[in-house]
Amino acid sequence: MTEKLPHVVVVGAGFGGVAAIKALAKAKVKITLVDRTNYHLFQPLLYQLSTAVLSTDDISFPVRAMFRKMKNIDLFMAKATGIDGKNKILHTNHGDISYDYLIVSAGATNNFFGLENVEKYSYGMKTIQETLHIRNHVLHMFERANKQLDSESVRRQMLTFICVGGGPTGVEEAGALAELVAVQKLDYPNLNFDEVSIKLIEATDRVLPMMPEKLQQYTLKVLQDKGVEVMLNTAVADCSEEGLYLKDGTFIPSKTVIWAAGVRAHRLASTIGTECDRAGRVIVEKTLQVPGYPEIFAIGDNAHFLQDGHPLPTVAPVAIQEANVAVDNIKALIKGNTQLKEFTYVDHGSMATIGRCQAVVSWGWLKIGGFFAWCIWMFLHLLRLEGTHADITVGTKWLWNFISGTRLGRIITNIKFDEEQ
Amino acid sequence: MTEKLPHVVVVGAGFGGVAAIKALAKAKVKITLVDRTNYHLFQPLLYQLSTAVLSTDDISFPVRAMFRKMKNIDLFMAKATGIDGKNKILHTNHGDISYDYLIVSAGATNNFFGLENVEKYSYGMKTIQETLHIRNHVLHMFERANKQLDSESVRRQMLTFICVGGGPTGVEEAGALAELVAVQKLDYPNLNFDEVSIKLIEATDRVLPMMPEKLQQYTLKVLQDKGVEVMLNTAVADCSEEGLYLKDGTFIPSKTVIWAAGVRAHRLASTIGTECDRAGRVIVEKTLQVPGYPEIFAIGDNAHFLQDGHPLPTVAPVAIQEANVAVDNIKALIKGNTQLKEFTYVDHGSMATIGRCQAVVSWGWLKIGGFFAWCIWMFLHLLRLEGTHADITVGTKWLWNFISGTRLGRIITNIKFDEEQ
Repeated sequence: MTEKLPHVVVVGAGFGGVAAIKALAKAKVKITLVDRTNYHLFQPLLYQLSTAVLSTDDISFPVRAMFRKMKNIDLFMAKATGIDGKNKILHTNHGDISYDYLIVSAGATNNFFGLENVEKYSYGMKTIQETLHIRNHVLHMFERANKQLDSESVRRQMLTFICVGGGPTGVEEAGALAELVAVQKLDYPNLNFDEVSIKLIEATDRVLPMMPEKLQQYTLKVLQDKGVEVMLNTAVADCSEEGLYLKDGTFIPSKTVIWAAGVRAHRLASTIGTECDRAGRVIVEKTLQVPGYPEIFAIGDNAHFLQDGHPLPTVAPVAIQEANVAVDNIKALIKGNTQLKEFTYVDHGSMATIGRCQAVVSWGWLKIGGFFAWCIWMFLHLLRLEGTHADITVGTKWLWNFISGTRLGRIITNIKFDEEQ
Repeated sequence: MTEKLPHVVVVGAGFGGVAAIKALAKAKVKITLVDRTNYHLFQPLLYQLSTAVLSTDDISFPVRAMFRKMKNIDLFMAKATGIDGKNKILHTNHGDISYDYLIVSAGATNNFFGLENVEKYSYGMKTIQETLHIRNHVLHMFERANKQLDSESVRRQMLTFICVGGGPTGVEEAGALAELVAVQKLDYPNLNFDEVSIKLIEATDRVLPMMPEKLQQYTLKVLQDKGVEVMLNTAVADCSEEGLYLKDGTFIPSKTVIWAAGVRAHRLASTIGTECDRAGRVIVEKTLQVPGYPEIFAIGDNAHFLQDGHPLPTVAPVAIQEANVAVDNIKALIKGNTQLKEFTYVDHGSMATIGRCQAVVSWGWLKIGGFFAWCIWMFLHLLRLEGTHADITVGTKWLWNFISGTRLGRIITNIKFDEEQ
């Protein structure tokens, strides 16, 4: 007779979900990972996909291969659509799944804060598809501008690239776009690159809010040296196909508004029916349990966890640390232990890259910007990539990019045979 | 006063078009390359994209970067829609282009021989998009079969992969699929891989018709050893969403029919209005000129050139050799020389890979199959890839694939956020 193992269902193969599964590796449980894709996406490098440094496969890892050695897990590739906490059932578009314990780590999507036109006309950068869309579109703008011999204003509009949001995503994207433009310059002798403009728009008075002020200033300087126009204290009012409207009434003509100004939780979290914050995150207990549902744990971008009076940021380290505590608590519950761990986030610092040879790192006493910070950034990202093959291909591409300065992926792939472009 | 240079328009950035441009590098001409994409696609390796060995960017090279050092060329990214030979105008979806000389090297698309349902339900493999479609679909079939706990017949249908056409594309695809299945086996412990079936269907009594019989036999044996069921003397009658109908009345349930049974010329060639063969190729003169239009040259898949009583095959070496003769003749015409070169194809042989460590090579007296042939195949393909970076990334991936036996690109990327799968 086979023992009936407790069934732990993990929704989402992001940093939180993957960490939870690794932590459950040796537990006597049956694990089902539910994800609408079959891969773990290394989101911190999406900006390199959008700017033609890396390819899709370099930053996406088939989860089945990641967990090949674990015999107690299966992937159920489906879209999770709702949670019935009372009956312990997860609804998906491929049928229902009963769980004994549920980890909600479904991640986040773009938050447009109710700005409908921004949602319609700007480019988010949370998925492979969205990111390829940006790459194809940006590259296409150069081809289109190159055909506009007559109108400088049309060309300028096509060659104005706006990133909204001065957090790591916006800063990294703006910096990488500036470097992409430098490569494009070699290939469009007929274009006047003075007509190209990259703007980084931020509502507050600083970029990289989690960094010390010295490194914020350094980041601003590096971006400006690269030709990025950083617009601080600048709020977005509206968007159209033709450009971006600012709160002060200014209109910036542009075909490319990249939205990196905020995220909101996957809507799955809200289907439990308990209290959520404005970004759709479930307000969890200190144990990461969802109030009233002791067998449901929400982590990462799906959890609103108050610490020192502030909700924790939606970054990978929070999700990973939460995953480990959630798993510890599930193991305790399985053993019949009711004394659960309370979560405390340990902030090891943060880092961001601004461009080739330029990054900022803030870890405890170590607060540096420049080449050495960039080396640390590269080394740690290679370490964190899943799988040896990713280290090899990404490492090789970075090395080649460093030596040759080229961008390997400048191909436009969204063209269909019989579609008008 | 600037000299008015003769304007050579090249349609298509395939092997023929690229060879033509290289041959024109030092000529005093203005070149416009018209292509609906911005890249040269290395079609011989599409089968490796479809089976998750390589990524999109590995086999696609931005043409602007390829011709960066040439100052007399521009890319006009557009779809060529028609040729007005009388007025020397090429129509595109982005406007008309006047030419003095035109090289029609627009390549080929799938030839379904009028089988409408085959066109509708089978998968072609001529473009990046079609090929990614195959990859996503094949990988998806394993995920879907893994959810079909109840019905063996449904699982078998999902896990039956059919390649139609015993030429190099069909053979390479079937062999690569068999190897992909072997990797998948490691990741689906709950699936019974006896239910997986790969079939290669060929209407004649042999595969790789251009090869000597000994190597055809060798190829058959290698494919069979890999688990591919090769069905010779088997003609296709019809296709549906549920499977493939053969002429003998048999029905093979399958969700995956990959069509590698024939190509036809891009329809652009036929818009000149001169005589074409059944596959849409323009019947050209010995000089590769289109009859009645001495300034239009058709080459590669767009030309029907009789030699020794047979039209030349639609392979890269023919297109490349034709490109060089067409360019020589254009240069002669520019000089006012009316004595043009007549084309003769020199067949250096052919090769095909069947799988890891197994290929067949037939060059003059050298007719071998096996590991050494595979090394030759790899070496030559690396040589022929455009750009150092492709050699580095493809070489690295092949090496890693050889060492680890894994497939790096097994991610399913066609999933949209709110789409039912």
